[in-house]
Amino acid sequence: MDFKGSHILSIEQFERADIERIFEVADRMEPYALRKRITRVLDGAILGNMFFEPSTRTRVSFGSAFNLLGGAVRETTGFESSAIAKGESLYDTARVLSGYSDVICMRHPQAGSVAEFAAASRVPVMNGGDGPNEHPTQALLDLYTIRKEVASKGRSMDELRIAMIGDLKYGRTVHSLCKLLKVYNNVTVTLISPRELQMPEELVEGLREVGHQVVVTDQLEGSINSDIVYSTRIQEERFGSKEEADLYRGKFRLNQQIYTKYCEPNTVIMHPLPRDSRAEANELDNDLNENPNLAIFRQADNGVLVRMALFALVLDVVDGVDKYSSDVNWYRPE
Amino acid sequence: MDFKGSHILSIEQFERADIERIFEVADRMEPYALRKRITRVLDGAILGNMFFEPSTRTRVSFGSAFNLLGGAVRETTGFESSAIAKGESLYDTARVLSGYSDVICMRHPQAGSVAEFAAASRVPVMNGGDGPNEHPTQALLDLYTIRKEVASKGRSMDELRIAMIGDLKYGRTVHSLCKLLKVYNNVTVTLISPRELQMPEELVEGLREVGHQVVVTDQLEGSINSDIVYSTRIQEERFGSKEEADLYRGKFRLNQQIYTKYCEPNTVIMHPLPRDSRAEANELDNDLNENPNLAIFRQADNGVLVRMALFALVLDVVDGVDKYSSDVNWYRPE
Amino acid sequence: MDFKGSHILSIEQFERADIERIFEVADRMEPYALRKRITRVLDGAILGNMFFEPSTRTRVSFGSAFNLLGGAVRETTGFESSAIAKGESLYDTARVLSGYSDVICMRHPQAGSVAEFAAASRVPVMNGGDGPNEHPTQALLDLYTIRKEVASKGRSMDELRIAMIGDLKYGRTVHSLCKLLKVYNNVTVTLISPRELQMPEELVEGLREVGHQVVVTDQLEGSINSDIVYSTRIQEERFGSKEEADLYRGKFRLNQQIYTKYCEPNTVIMHPLPRDSRAEANELDNDLNENPNLAIFRQADNGVLVRMALFALVLDVVDGVDKYSSDVNWYRPE
Repeated sequence: MDFKGSHILSIEQFERADIERIFEVADRMEPYALRKRITRVLDGAILGNMFFEPSTRTRVSFGSAFNLLGGAVRETTGFESSAIAKGESLYDTARVLSGYSDVICMRHPQAGSVAEFAAASRVPVMNGGDGPNEHPTQALLDLYTIRKEVASKGRSMDELRIAMIGDLKYGRTVHSLCKLLKVYNNVTVTLISPRELQMPEELVEGLREVGHQVVVTDQLEGSINSDIVYSTRIQEERFGSKEEADLYRGKFRLNQQIYTKYCEPNTVIMHPLPRDSRAEANELDNDLNENPNLAIFRQADNGVLVRMALFALVLDVVDGVDKYSSDVNWYRPE
Repeated sequence: MDFKGSHILSIEQFERADIERIFEVADRMEPYALRKRITRVLDGAILGNMFFEPSTRTRVSFGSAFNLLGGAVRETTGFESSAIAKGESLYDTARVLSGYSDVICMRHPQAGSVAEFAAASRVPVMNGGDGPNEHPTQALLDLYTIRKEVASKGRSMDELRIAMIGDLKYGRTVHSLCKLLKVYNNVTVTLISPRELQMPEELVEGLREVGHQVVVTDQLEGSINSDIVYSTRIQEERFGSKEEADLYRGKFRLNQQIYTKYCEPNTVIMHPLPRDSRAEANELDNDLNENPNLAIFRQADNGVLVRMALFALVLDVVDGVDKYSSDVNWYRPE
Repeated sequence: MDFKGSHILSIEQFERADIERIFEVADRMEPYALRKRITRVLDGAILGNMFFEPSTRTRVSFGSAFNLLGGAVRETTGFESSAIAKGESLYDTARVLSGYSDVICMRHPQAGSVAEFAAASRVPVMNGGDGPNEHPTQALLDLYTIRKEVASKGRSMDELRIAMIGDLKYGRTVHSLCKLLKVYNNVTVTLISPRELQMPEELVEGLREVGHQVVVTDQLEGSINSDIVYSTRIQEERFGSKEEADLYRGKFRLNQQIYTKYCEPNTVIMHPLPRDSRAEANELDNDLNENPNLAIFRQADNGVLVRMALFALVLDVVDGVDKYSSDVNWYRPE
């Protein structure tokens, strides 16, 4: 695809070459995200960071990525707008707001809303999450993280072995991952969930159609000795009955003891965050925090790189990033 | 008037020469708003964008205008401040907040509040809407749009023919327009509204006193073949009785069919936005969206130009805008 | 202490030399805060201004201080984050958010939360108020103001005479002041409050231990003829009984008449703000607004200087501030 001026709405719009282009640019953003250099390539540009649903981390990640490239950010942080409440159409909102910035990131609770907005916008729009539908930059940062983690262990994306744990029926991030993994070869995907929360059949079929090996199970034992374990939360209310919930309580939890018992020594642990750290959550325990294979915070860091890359590609400034760079004046830990 | 360091509180403070000065500077801002050039003239300056009442579009428009001139924006987006809730006076708030920025834009639900705030502020204050009272930058962008639209058709503001439709009794924007139009000559103003929602008599008198021709009617037929049609919403609850509301239901609506039947081929359609696009609204239909004379989104774009002009005038940097300008690095559609 | 890369969590971490270093740097920030010069030393740096509890003035003061040094600001303005609501730990929040900025200011309703957050953060963290616990930048700006006000009258901090009025039991600011005053010599502290709202005994003891003279009283008469009077609000609901409240009603109020009667001609009036200006508040009357010794708004201005100084020290750019400075382009009143 030609990124210049494009909307970023769905992972479906990317082919393998596009994904590799994004990741290659993301790699080049690292010195700027780590503050080894600064760049002012987008000095004068404005991001409209339009979050019509609250989200601190995704909103700030987009905004910081734009600041790191030298641009300014104008923002909305929830349904403060009386305009939309007063019956304004997404068409009108897009026509107006796209006059205020050079690119827009948008989150909105309604599926399809960001694409509808983009159709009327005069500047490129990035989907920051449209309700239950898509959150393409999360999917890309997950895949970028997998690629980086396995590369650091000398392995490649082809032949990848990945296990996904938890609520695979409703989890937006694991659905996106299943779609994205189809561009690689010979992937082994192990899907571990309660019977009531299994991965939708069409996604499983999609993986098999491209020749991937898929295992469906409800047991951690023998299933998580893979390159990557991607853990997600199970909300109790998703179960059809209390009996079903009781049957599975605590069985999809990961902690250091379970990790040592069932994972390979280098299995990388991922999670879409936020992680519920309360005792009753039975999700991903705090005793893993010092495990060097816990990659959940590297995922968040990679989100900045991927978002910088998308801004640079869509605004066509990839080659200018280094050209407009300079030294950092201030103290930076590490 | 001398704009340097002045507060912008009310349209009453402007004479014709002042308005023309603002519009002349607004014209010069266009290359920057269209990102043909960038300017850093306000690099280092801070706008305090103090919205004590939510508003996405006006708030972001002010903020983007300031960013486009190179400045930074600090912001508040609603009555988050516990200070005001705790009984702090506008005097105290102004004395404190005016130490944090070089210029302040303020919206506040209470009529007169912005002027009271400005009296204690140590930096220039712009009224971003003080409840039912004034919203001077909206009035200026409306007038600037009228001037630009009629000029593009080879006509001037003197001899203008304008029709206003809808709730003329409570509509703040049409009141401001009536006041501003008094600086021009030989204007014909047609006021179309239900009997219960007619333009206040003193405003009609004001127009007549300067020699303008005023027609008051409750019929679109024969009334909207003018240079400009300015449409506003009628809220059903404004009527004194259900019978009155029923009598007028749908009679002040504009759509393509009505436009073709009653308007001139080049009649320009305006609206203060947001427009209610729901079917039952009977306001300004979506089937006008492709009509090139629908100027409602050009109004919003012009708001950025007018606000840039006011910042440049009040901070006395009009001549510096071009001096501190440079090329745009990034891709911009169109 | 070595400021470079340090968290700023509590006034307990400062010795006299540290405080004097902060104040010396704050003095050097004045030309920039007054817009006689601008500096871009932090061009490219990002502040994460994370206010998990609303606060307009402290939040905007931190943000403006960072903008004045040339940096950009990403912000959150309340508990919008569903992440924390979903059970995310402060450890996780810190690990994620500290990847988005170079320094973080944080306000949070829970005592100890900012220190817990800082322990997991990869960048320096400044406490912007952690509930009832600490608000160290407020304490520093209070002390900086006292020092500047008495210096302008030819006096020094050693031998200082200060009176504190109001709710001394729960007032966070007066507690911090008592701790900070211990680094000076021969201070006379007069503590004026209702019996039920007296300064905690350990704080009084702390002052006495370093040789300061402490007077405890419930009468203004004869008590406020000092260098500084620091007034705070008494909330009626703090009293144990209505009788106690009635006994003291209006007795800790300061207005021009009381000032003239009991204060010295040059006694400086301070207050942590916001001040309740409603008639029934009986706190610090508006008729003092023209009194040149009312320093409450100078306190707010000094907050910007102190916060700029802390940013410059923690990010180690003190010497770069002048180096990266330039002229101001725009008009500035005064």
